[in-house]
Amino acid sequence: MNPRVPEIAPSLIRELAARKRSTSIDLGLGEPTLLPRIEYFERALERVRTGGVKYTANAGDLELRELIARHYGYPGLESPENVCVTIGSQEAMYVTLKTLLDPSRDELLVVEPVFPSYVKMAALEGISVRIVSMLDDDDFEFDAERIIAAIGERTRAIVICSPCNPTARVISRDAGEMLVESLSRRRGEPIWLIHDEIYREQMFVDNAADLARLYPHTIVANSLSKSNALTGLRLGWILGPAEFLEQAIKVHAWATSCADTFAQYVALDVFRSPANLQEHAPWYQEHRALMREVLEDSSLPFVDPEGAFYVCVRLPKGTPSLTAAYDLIGRFDVVAIPGIAFGESMEGWLRLSWVATAERLRDGVTRIAEYCAQLLPTARASG
Amino acid sequence: MNPRVPEIAPSLIRELAARKRSTSIDLGLGEPTLLPRIEYFERALERVRTGGVKYTANAGDLELRELIARHYGYPGLESPENVCVTIGSQEAMYVTLKTLLDPSRDELLVVEPVFPSYVKMAALEGISVRIVSMLDDDDFEFDAERIIAAIGERTRAIVICSPCNPTARVISRDAGEMLVESLSRRRGEPIWLIHDEIYREQMFVDNAADLARLYPHTIVANSLSKSNALTGLRLGWILGPAEFLEQAIKVHAWATSCADTFAQYVALDVFRSPANLQEHAPWYQEHRALMREVLEDSSLPFVDPEGAFYVCVRLPKGTPSLTAAYDLIGRFDVVAIPGIAFGESMEGWLRLSWVATAERLRDGVTRIAEYCAQLLPTARASG
Repeated sequence: MNPRVPEIAPSLIRELAARKRSTSIDLGLGEPTLLPRIEYFERALERVRTGGVKYTANAGDLELRELIARHYGYPGLESPENVCVTIGSQEAMYVTLKTLLDPSRDELLVVEPVFPSYVKMAALEGISVRIVSMLDDDDFEFDAERIIAAIGERTRAIVICSPCNPTARVISRDAGEMLVESLSRRRGEPIWLIHDEIYREQMFVDNAADLARLYPHTIVANSLSKSNALTGLRLGWILGPAEFLEQAIKVHAWATSCADTFAQYVALDVFRSPANLQEHAPWYQEHRALMREVLEDSSLPFVDPEGAFYVCVRLPKGTPSLTAAYDLIGRFDVVAIPGIAFGESMEGWLRLSWVATAERLRDGVTRIAEYCAQLLPTARASG
Repeated sequence: MNPRVPEIAPSLIRELAARKRSTSIDLGLGEPTLLPRIEYFERALERVRTGGVKYTANAGDLELRELIARHYGYPGLESPENVCVTIGSQEAMYVTLKTLLDPSRDELLVVEPVFPSYVKMAALEGISVRIVSMLDDDDFEFDAERIIAAIGERTRAIVICSPCNPTARVISRDAGEMLVESLSRRRGEPIWLIHDEIYREQMFVDNAADLARLYPHTIVANSLSKSNALTGLRLGWILGPAEFLEQAIKVHAWATSCADTFAQYVALDVFRSPANLQEHAPWYQEHRALMREVLEDSSLPFVDPEGAFYVCVRLPKGTPSLTAAYDLIGRFDVVAIPGIAFGESMEGWLRLSWVATAERLRDGVTRIAEYCAQLLPTARASG
C-alpha cells in the first residue's frame, strides 16, 4: 500500500455530515440548495439523442475551452490552450498542485483558514506544506504582509481561496497588488499564485482582486458547482499559461481521461451566454442580507461575509469547536462545521452556511445562540 | 514543475487521431459508434428536475454501489463497501495503482501488449514498472507461465486487461487458475491482481477467467463506456476488498471528489436491470463475424478476436508499424493504430477496430491489404 494514503485522516466535515438526522437543521451544507436550470439538461439531452456522448479531447471540448478563456479574459490566458476542462474544481486543484510542484524540492504555502482539500492533496503527493494563518482578531482578512512574510526558501506556489471557504472573506485589490508587487520583485524562479475562485459568482464587495489580472504566474481553478447549483455535475476548469497547461493536460489525461461530455454540453450552454453564471446571484444577495439580520438579532459575533455562502460565528471563549459541533448536532439537532476543520486559526469558531430556507436559518441560528448562552457561565469560569 | 510530468510523452494514439481527415476511414477508433439508449438520459433528467444534481458521497451513490457489487457477485466483494464509483475506468485504474503501490518499494508488472495508460500512470506516480510481453508467435495468448516467470522481488501487483485492448485476447480460466495457484503458494505479502475488464460485455468465448472469482487479492476496474456506448459519460468503478477500498476512496475523494451525479443516475438505471449491460452485445457479435469475413477475404494475417472490438493485423515482415500508420493515413486515408503504441511486443502489427459501418470496414481493410501488397516485394528484399 502507498503509505501516504492511510496517513490521510478521513474528512471531518463528511464525518459530521454523517451524524445528521432527517430532522436536523443543516447549516453545514457546502452546496447550493437551489435547483439548476433544467433547460441546460434538456438541450444537452437533445445532443445525446443525435450524437451520443463520445469522448472529447482530453483537455475538453474546443469551443468550451474557447468560451471559458474568452469570458474571463485574463491577460495572456485568453485562448483555448489556456484552459483544461476538469472534474470540478477539485480535480482542477489536484492536477494543478501535482503538475506545478516537485515534491522533492518545492513547498506549497496555504493561506488558512481554508477548506482542507489543498493540504490533503499535498499530503497525498508528498508535497511539503507551509501554513500562513489569517488572524481572527482581523476577522480573517487577507493580509498580504503576513503572506509575504511567510514565504520560505522552498515556497514555489501560494494557494488562495477567494471568496474564501470558510471565512467568506475576499482578497482585496490592494492586498492582491501588495502581494504581487512583492512576488514580482523576486529574482529566480517565479512563485506561482493559485487562485481558487469557485465562489466567484457569490461576491458582495466590489474591490475583489482577480489575481490573474495582476500577475502572469497565476493559475485559476473554478467550476459551475456553486454558481449554477451544479455541484454534482463535476464540471470545472483550470486557466493558466499555455506551457503550464500543456503539462497539466497530461496529468488530467492519465488520471481521468476527460470530463463528462454531457456535463460539457451543459457548460457550453451556460458559457454561450455567460450572464447565466450570475443567474443565482440575486438569491445569494437576498439570503446574505437575511443571514446578517438573523445573526444581528441573535447577538452572536460573526465575520461579515464578503463572498461565498458562509459566515463564521465566534463561540464563547474557550469552547473547542469540535465539542460545540458535536453538542449542537447531539442536543440541538443543528449541523454546523467546527472551525478546527479549516485549520488551527479557526479554532473557537463555527462555519455556518446560509443556503437553507429563511425559516430554518432563523431557527438554526436561534438554537446556536441558545447553546452559546448556556456555555457562557462555564466559559467565563474557565476563561 | 513536477519533473515527472514533462517526461511523459504525449499520447501517440491521440496524435494519430489528430491527423484524421473528414474523408478518412477510421479503424483506429477506441469507442463505440452506437448511440446510447436515450431513455437512461430522459429518466436521469427527470431526477434532476425534481432533485437537482447534488454531490453524492465520495464513493458514489449507495444504491448504485450495492447494485454493482451484487450484479458481479465476486466472492467477498458483494457489498457496497467493496465499490467506489469513479470517473470512468481510467480513474478507477489511476486510483487503484496510486493506492496500492508504494513508489519507494513496489513494482508493477504489466502484461503487454496493452493500452499504454497503466505504464503512463505508473510513470506519473514514480512507480517502477516491469513488462512481460505475450508473444506474437502465440497470437498474444495470455501465457500464465510467462507471467509467473516475470514476477520479480519487488512485484506487488500484476495488471491484466482481459478482454485485451489491443490484442482482443481473453485470459482463459486455465491460464487464470495456473497464475492464481502460483500466487497463492507464495509466502509473505500477497501479490495483487488488477483486472481491467472494461471490455467484459464484448466477449466471444466462454472460457474467460474472472480473476476476482479465483483470487481474493484481486481488484477489478470497469465502466459503462464500452458496454453501453457511454464513453463520454465517464462512469466507472473499482471493485475490491473493503480494506483496500477504504483507502482508495480517500484518493478518489481528494483527486475528484465524486463521480458525476447525473452519470450515476444513468448508471442506476442500467444496473436496476443488469441485462442492460448486454444490450449492445448482439451488434458486436455481428460486427465481429463481419470483420473476420472481411479479413479472411483480404488474406491479411490477423489474431482471431476473443473479446473487445479490435483485431490485430500483421504487417509484412520488417515493416515498422508507425511508418505503416503514417503511410496509411497519408496515402490511403485510413486510420489504424500502430502496434508499437502498445509495447515493443506488438511492433510489426496494426490494431484495427471494427466499430465502423460494414461498408467502411470492408473498404478500410481493402486499402490496408493493398498497402501491404505494395510493401511485400520490399519486405521480401529486406527480409
